[in-house]
Amino acid sequence: MAIEMDKKQRVALALEGFDPRYGKLPLACLHVAIVLSAFTITLQSMPGKDSLTVQILTGLEVILLAIFCAEFLLRLWSAESRLGYIFSFWGLIDLLSILPALLFLFPNSEVLRTLRLMRIFRLLKLLRMRRAILRLEHALSSNREEMILFGVLAAITLFLAAVGIYHFEKDAQPEIFGSIPQSAWWAIATLTTVGYGDVYPVTTGGRIFTAITLLIGLGIVAIPAGLITSGLLNAPEEDPDDLENDLINRDKPETTNGEN
Amino acid sequence: MAIEMDKKQRVALALEGFDPRYGKLPLACLHVAIVLSAFTITLQSMPGKDSLTVQILTGLEVILLAIFCAEFLLRLWSAESRLGYIFSFWGLIDLLSILPALLFLFPNSEVLRTLRLMRIFRLLKLLRMRRAILRLEHALSSNREEMILFGVLAAITLFLAAVGIYHFEKDAQPEIFGSIPQSAWWAIATLTTVGYGDVYPVTTGGRIFTAITLLIGLGIVAIPAGLITSGLLNAPEEDPDDLENDLINRDKPETTNGEN
Amino acid sequence: MAIEMDKKQRVALALEGFDPRYGKLPLACLHVAIVLSAFTITLQSMPGKDSLTVQILTGLEVILLAIFCAEFLLRLWSAESRLGYIFSFWGLIDLLSILPALLFLFPNSEVLRTLRLMRIFRLLKLLRMRRAILRLEHALSSNREEMILFGVLAAITLFLAAVGIYHFEKDAQPEIFGSIPQSAWWAIATLTTVGYGDVYPVTTGGRIFTAITLLIGLGIVAIPAGLITSGLLNAPEEDPDDLENDLINRDKPETTNGEN
Amino acid sequence: MAIEMDKKQRVALALEGFDPRYGKLPLACLHVAIVLSAFTITLQSMPGKDSLTVQILTGLEVILLAIFCAEFLLRLWSAESRLGYIFSFWGLIDLLSILPALLFLFPNSEVLRTLRLMRIFRLLKLLRMRRAILRLEHALSSNREEMILFGVLAAITLFLAAVGIYHFEKDAQPEIFGSIPQSAWWAIATLTTVGYGDVYPVTTGGRIFTAITLLIGLGIVAIPAGLITSGLLNAPEEDPDDLENDLINRDKPETTNGEN
Repeated sequence: MAIEMDKKQRVALALEGFDPRYGKLPLACLHVAIVLSAFTITLQSMPGKDSLTVQILTGLEVILLAIFCAEFLLRLWSAESRLGYIFSFWGLIDLLSILPALLFLFPNSEVLRTLRLMRIFRLLKLLRMRRAILRLEHALSSNREEMILFGVLAAITLFLAAVGIYHFEKDAQPEIFGSIPQSAWWAIATLTTVGYGDVYPVTTGGRIFTAITLLIGLGIVAIPAGLITSGLLNAPEEDPDDLENDLINRDKPETTNGEN
Repeated sequence: MAIEMDKKQRVALALEGFDPRYGKLPLACLHVAIVLSAFTITLQSMPGKDSLTVQILTGLEVILLAIFCAEFLLRLWSAESRLGYIFSFWGLIDLLSILPALLFLFPNSEVLRTLRLMRIFRLLKLLRMRRAILRLEHALSSNREEMILFGVLAAITLFLAAVGIYHFEKDAQPEIFGSIPQSAWWAIATLTTVGYGDVYPVTTGGRIFTAITLLIGLGIVAIPAGLITSGLLNAPEEDPDDLENDLINRDKPETTNGEN
Repeated sequence: MAIEMDKKQRVALALEGFDPRYGKLPLACLHVAIVLSAFTITLQSMPGKDSLTVQILTGLEVILLAIFCAEFLLRLWSAESRLGYIFSFWGLIDLLSILPALLFLFPNSEVLRTLRLMRIFRLLKLLRMRRAILRLEHALSSNREEMILFGVLAAITLFLAAVGIYHFEKDAQPEIFGSIPQSAWWAIATLTTVGYGDVYPVTTGGRIFTAITLLIGLGIVAIPAGLITSGLLNAPEEDPDDLENDLINRDKPETTNGEN
Repeated sequence: MAIEMDKKQRVALALEGFDPRYGKLPLACLHVAIVLSAFTITLQSMPGKDSLTVQILTGLEVILLAIFCAEFLLRLWSAESRLGYIFSFWGLIDLLSILPALLFLFPNSEVLRTLRLMRIFRLLKLLRMRRAILRLEHALSSNREEMILFGVLAAITLFLAAVGIYHFEKDAQPEIFGSIPQSAWWAIATLTTVGYGDVYPVTTGGRIFTAITLLIGLGIVAIPAGLITSGLLNAPEEDPDDLENDLINRDKPETTNGEN
């Protein structure tokens, strides 16, 4: 490929896994850092750690923070439009991924504890894997109208089930079916067939209502998840070279294509 | 469109979302009122409200009642055949939606408490969304014969499962498997895979019977819900303009089409 | 149709729902008797009946018994081959349906209590509905080889899951995972996603094993039920007139077809 | 078939179910031995055996061990490439199947108890049934890339669900949602819809999060199992004669085919 690239293009390509010399290596390093970050978050959630482990985890966190900050700055610098990057979906994810880590460096503050959980946004960066994200986008956009329609139908079904069971069970079990929001928890657990067993009808009327609701409602509530499944499975395959060409040719005038 | 419309046609079109000037706005207002009604029902079911909240909810209820009464009267007035509207499916839903609200205005009466729950019929009005209702109708009518056949098969499967588990478990757990109706509750919770955990077999025979019933019966009991799913997903799309034309041209003689 | 029928043919046709004068009426009466029988069985299983109810149920049982005996004798008399009928699937079902009822007439005997449950066989007669039985036969025969193969695969999966969880949990929960058969109960309840909650792993190893087993095994154990579903749904439709013609022409020599 | 076979070929054919004289008999005997081995493992896991049963089971185990050792040696001797056989998948399974049995002959040693469970590998030999194994191979290889992609997506979904519920429930239920690994157990039991009922959210935030996670996540976590199902069902059928010809012609030069 005889195209001369400036440094910005080189960095942009490297961050997408198309580095001319190292190929997917820089991208793979970022993915390893994300997985390491997930392990750090998991380990920090576990109680009973000794002080050495805490120190190691804090150190690892600082290193990961440096990596993600460097990635963010590189992406910002190499972006065609810097404001466009910051306010894009991935730009916000990248920014959110490093903000809580900055706060994490002051670990004694009480209010920061929940902010630390925001590091979970880093995991979403894993989804930047081109094939996964292509399919997720396809799943959510290809049948957006269907998703909304059947999401509304599922919500109505769940609400009607909640009101119905509330009517039948509110006197027999006032603690767990005492209001419609409480009954909605039963509707969710039942119509997804999870059935934890913390709430279930005990009256004859409630049980007959449950039986009818299940036989009819299962088919309706299952549709949104089914649409996501089929959207994910039926996404068209995109040629990965296309992205590489997009990145290389981005500064060229579009007229070169028009000449052909 | 150079067709002159009388006021009745104008109202009928507006209530279906085809108002010449305001478009979908009148229909959207009705939908907002229905969703507000759902919130009112939900909040009123929750215990521990102070008297101010109760007053606000009652006031909201009166306003919503006025809106639904107005809608009912407008639909009745603008209908081609008024008796036909009242005794149609949607006419009955509209009527049922306002009847309990009228009773609700006398909140101290004990017998009216369950009647208030009938306000849930208002939610069904949400289903009047043309696309949703087209699909529901299709789901229920396109394979009506199949639905009945597999509904009967599912009922037989559930009954046979209930009788079988009753035979195995009635001596070991007389409280929860003491009769066939009680065992039918187990059959429903098991064959829909909800599995609350309030009833389950403890004898070896009952467990082997459960295993066989599950491996065979799951496929049979899941069919009615599956038919609803496929009926909803495979409904043909209707052009929304068709309805508008239907409403505009409803008084014209059919022969105009015959001339072409 | 100018074919003269003898009485045997007339009875055989009537019992299949093709009576020349009354059409489906005789068959419908039999179906009503079967459903009544199901109600009788259900009511008799319920405790706390007063003596009047018991007497009514006993009387109803005697009447139903007479109907099913008459049906059996008529089918036997009108059958082309009587031995063939008795040893056919439906002949055995018909016989089993009346045998327990005969025993039921001596209600005080202890040993007869379980025999009374054999009346459940009558319900299988409901399946004689031609369309239902055609589909069930199709579901079980069309992919018999597949059914056996995937039934064996499901059994192996369940057994391996049971042995695995036994290994992980037998020390932590010796009462409920104390042997492989006990662990197999967990495997059934888990891999069908019923999840009653009476048995579940508590060790870390057992939980990781459960996660892996679920992600892989769900797909395998669900196949037999899925094959039954698809077999039931994809059964070809048979023209109901074919059966009528079969019954009318059964005594004619086959050579009439050969002449064409 | 006029092809002269040496003894090695004869043995190899017999072990695959193509013995010229006895057909599938030798293979069937091996399968019976495997099923017997499964019964032995099951019975030995059950507590409260008397000493006679223990002796019978030990004797049966010795016989089964001899059979599997003989099978291993025959397969080794008749293999085209002996090292190739030992380090093949099935060679390792055959070897692992007899190793724990050898150790089992010294039953008093404590460390050997878990090794005895390795006899479970014998069950995998059942999968050597050609049709089953063809389909399993197809299920795992035909869409390997899809499996990895959706396996990763399912893992990310489960992890995000675990972190989310940990955030909502860790203060309300510190014993069961006290760390992310504990919360991951909830995520597995919930998103596969097993729902044992040992862990479930009790806070309002946790329940709303569960509802959203279920409606979206069910569709993602179910895909790996669905891919296995479709891979198993859509495997192409191979002509069983092909294997027989492969075994018979394996020593012939390939040029005979080239001449045509």
